[in-house]
Amino acid sequence: MAKVTNFDELCLENLKDIYDAEHQIIEALPKMAEAATAPRLKDAFNTHLKQTEVHIERLDRVFGLLGESPQRKTCLAAKGLIAEGRENIKEIEPGPLLDAALIESAQKVEHYEIASYGTVRTFATQSGKAEIAVLLGETLQEEGDTDKALTTIAEVIVNPKAVRVDS
Amino acid sequence: MAKVTNFDELCLENLKDIYDAEHQIIEALPKMAEAATAPRLKDAFNTHLKQTEVHIERLDRVFGLLGESPQRKTCLAAKGLIAEGRENIKEIEPGPLLDAALIESAQKVEHYEIASYGTVRTFATQSGKAEIAVLLGETLQEEGDTDKALTTIAEVIVNPKAVRVDS
Repeated sequence: MAKVTNFDELCLENLKDIYDAEHQIIEALPKMAEAATAPRLKDAFNTHLKQTEVHIERLDRVFGLLGESPQRKTCLAAKGLIAEGRENIKEIEPGPLLDAALIESAQKVEHYEIASYGTVRTFATQSGKAEIAVLLGETLQEEGDTDKALTTIAEVIVNPKAVRVDS
Repeated sequence: MAKVTNFDELCLENLKDIYDAEHQIIEALPKMAEAATAPRLKDAFNTHLKQTEVHIERLDRVFGLLGESPQRKTCLAAKGLIAEGRENIKEIEPGPLLDAALIESAQKVEHYEIASYGTVRTFATQSGKAEIAVLLGETLQEEGDTDKALTTIAEVIVNPKAVRVDS
């Protein structure tokens, strides 16, 4: 993290981190959709890809409202979590077991984003930047909804099949 | 991840990952408590340290119930998130701004754990391991409560002071 001496700088560092994470996710999701077997899971990853494009556009607007150009700062957490997902794709045979592992990786990324957007939304609210807080809150809501949708797909579709896999 | 060919193996890999994460957290929390300025935040980190010891004991029992010895597998996500927290301690002057950054790092770790425990609890439930699911659910509840407590400390105590820092 760059030297941080005030709250706005702390907020900006976080925005650069999540902006990078969103770009990493844009690259990862098509591979996850391709690796998934369950059609509902493929759809969920593709839907989230479109949402992620909107999340990036919202962050562009947030940077603009702060009078800054959009900047990425490598998000190591997203990098590690996405690498884990890539490793799963290499190591596990396509089917319900890989689907379960893909959901798990995706939910870890979602939770990283929930924590990040939750923090910057609160920062924006508490430093009187209401318009920015609303934009970040919209994305936060969608990340939460995606997480819940993935839980449902795991519980109802994927895991009951994965339990029976024994290759 | 080791070669995974069935659901129980996938569950076990996850348990080793979170077992390692909990041990990393046990080491990190005293440093975070020491670096924190707000007494409520120091208390929260110290309380969570005691809870984390219980979480490790519960995982020991879970491994036992599965007929396995407890094993750690390096959790890169926790490593990255904790490194970020350490960097904050080096880069930011002690006070409300560092407290805000510490809360943020801690909440990212909490969310990693919420995603992890959520996944393994569901795996346990869906593969008929009710006793294990209950143990993991207890920890999941406490991780969620810690996350909420940290949000309150940020919103009510730390951020209102951090907004005014301009060193």
